[in-house]
Amino acid sequence: MPIEINLNSLEVILVSPRNPLNIGAAARAMANFGLSLLTVVAPWEPRWPEMLSEIKSAVGAEGLVQNAKRTDTLVEAVADCTLVIGTGTLTYRKPEQPVVALPDLAPIVQRELAHGGRIALVFGPEKHGLTSEDLSYSHILVEIPTQPAQPSMNLGQAVAVCLYELAGRARPYAAHASTSPQPATAGREELLASLVEELMIASEYSPAGMRQANRHDLRLLLRRLTLSDKDARRTLGLLRRVLYTLRH
Amino acid sequence: MPIEINLNSLEVILVSPRNPLNIGAAARAMANFGLSLLTVVAPWEPRWPEMLSEIKSAVGAEGLVQNAKRTDTLVEAVADCTLVIGTGTLTYRKPEQPVVALPDLAPIVQRELAHGGRIALVFGPEKHGLTSEDLSYSHILVEIPTQPAQPSMNLGQAVAVCLYELAGRARPYAAHASTSPQPATAGREELLASLVEELMIASEYSPAGMRQANRHDLRLLLRRLTLSDKDARRTLGLLRRVLYTLRH
Repeated sequence: MPIEINLNSLEVILVSPRNPLNIGAAARAMANFGLSLLTVVAPWEPRWPEMLSEIKSAVGAEGLVQNAKRTDTLVEAVADCTLVIGTGTLTYRKPEQPVVALPDLAPIVQRELAHGGRIALVFGPEKHGLTSEDLSYSHILVEIPTQPAQPSMNLGQAVAVCLYELAGRARPYAAHASTSPQPATAGREELLASLVEELMIASEYSPAGMRQANRHDLRLLLRRLTLSDKDARRTLGLLRRVLYTLRH
Repeated sequence: MPIEINLNSLEVILVSPRNPLNIGAAARAMANFGLSLLTVVAPWEPRWPEMLSEIKSAVGAEGLVQNAKRTDTLVEAVADCTLVIGTGTLTYRKPEQPVVALPDLAPIVQRELAHGGRIALVFGPEKHGLTSEDLSYSHILVEIPTQPAQPSMNLGQAVAVCLYELAGRARPYAAHASTSPQPATAGREELLASLVEELMIASEYSPAGMRQANRHDLRLLLRRLTLSDKDARRTLGLLRRVLYTLRH
């Protein structure tokens, strides 16, 4: 029995977009391919959200732009999501997460949606793309197979190509509703990261100067684990107890 | 073995584009996916070709824009081509040519190129797309599978999606050396399990009667995580420190 892709569980997140034309172009591509949930993280535009009504490039997607969520941080934006997919050119990076070529992404997305997951597709700002810190919130990274000589795509075009692959092109895959456990949300993972950090401090594991580096590594480590929700709750329970005992 | 597409025999033709930003965006997508031959038919812009140097959206494709051919008519533009592919939304048309969905186009293009053919991919003006007369020069028509409620794509995005399908997606993908990390040994996992168990006891998390059940669950949990050796060692380091602090 083919799985229907529930496009209401697939969100687009734009981190610090600078050019309103690109926000509009992203929204238009979303409307073309049937998506509706757009979040903008820390938009550069100082007149946000008033300027939304001026975005001319969102042809046929005006409502979608008006309903766009706005958050200050990426961590807030992905809190509800069970699979966070970072996008970008990885030519000059050595990512720690698995890198998936866009043509291979659809089965992964469909599997996640079939298990009741919620997916964020995250795009960085025009000039530099996602930072290493942004990427550390991603479970996997996706790369569009472009030419090495000219790898960097325009933001609106990158969104269109990704959504074409995931929502336009994708045919129903023959998969069965499986009994895989529900994955932990990014919010729960972040809670776990904070708790581990408190443990590090309480046990004086982490010299103050190392904390930033540790938090980054820790976030990556937790993403790699792809914890189930149940396992995440168990681990939280134990660590809370340990922390309590350490402090009393 | 995938067929090597000779991208020098695949041209993009824009018929009467109105917005220079879109010419630039089309050129940028061509550079992203390794194409170089652009023809503009009867551009609306009266300052053509002088204005070409002002096109800011052609990031990394400035030379491609400068070398763009210009013709007055579509028939001139396609004169050398053996396969002319018209693009557009066909919702309100009854085309006489075969219509191919974009996901099915690559094999047709590859066959034509393998026979030494030359292909034109033709895009219409922003507002109305290709006219019936324009379409009459096409051998086949291609349709991007968009939502019926919002079928019409932005020109630059449509070019990007088509070229991704034909040139990006088909390209053998050299995955980045995201060298899979060495997995943790079973011995290391067992060490970790013991340490977590000691933590449970030291923090009085585990009532004595529950210990057996916990150990079992814990082992299963640790196996599910499929820790890398590096992550396992890091986690061991932290937990040893926590345990030490708990006991002193």
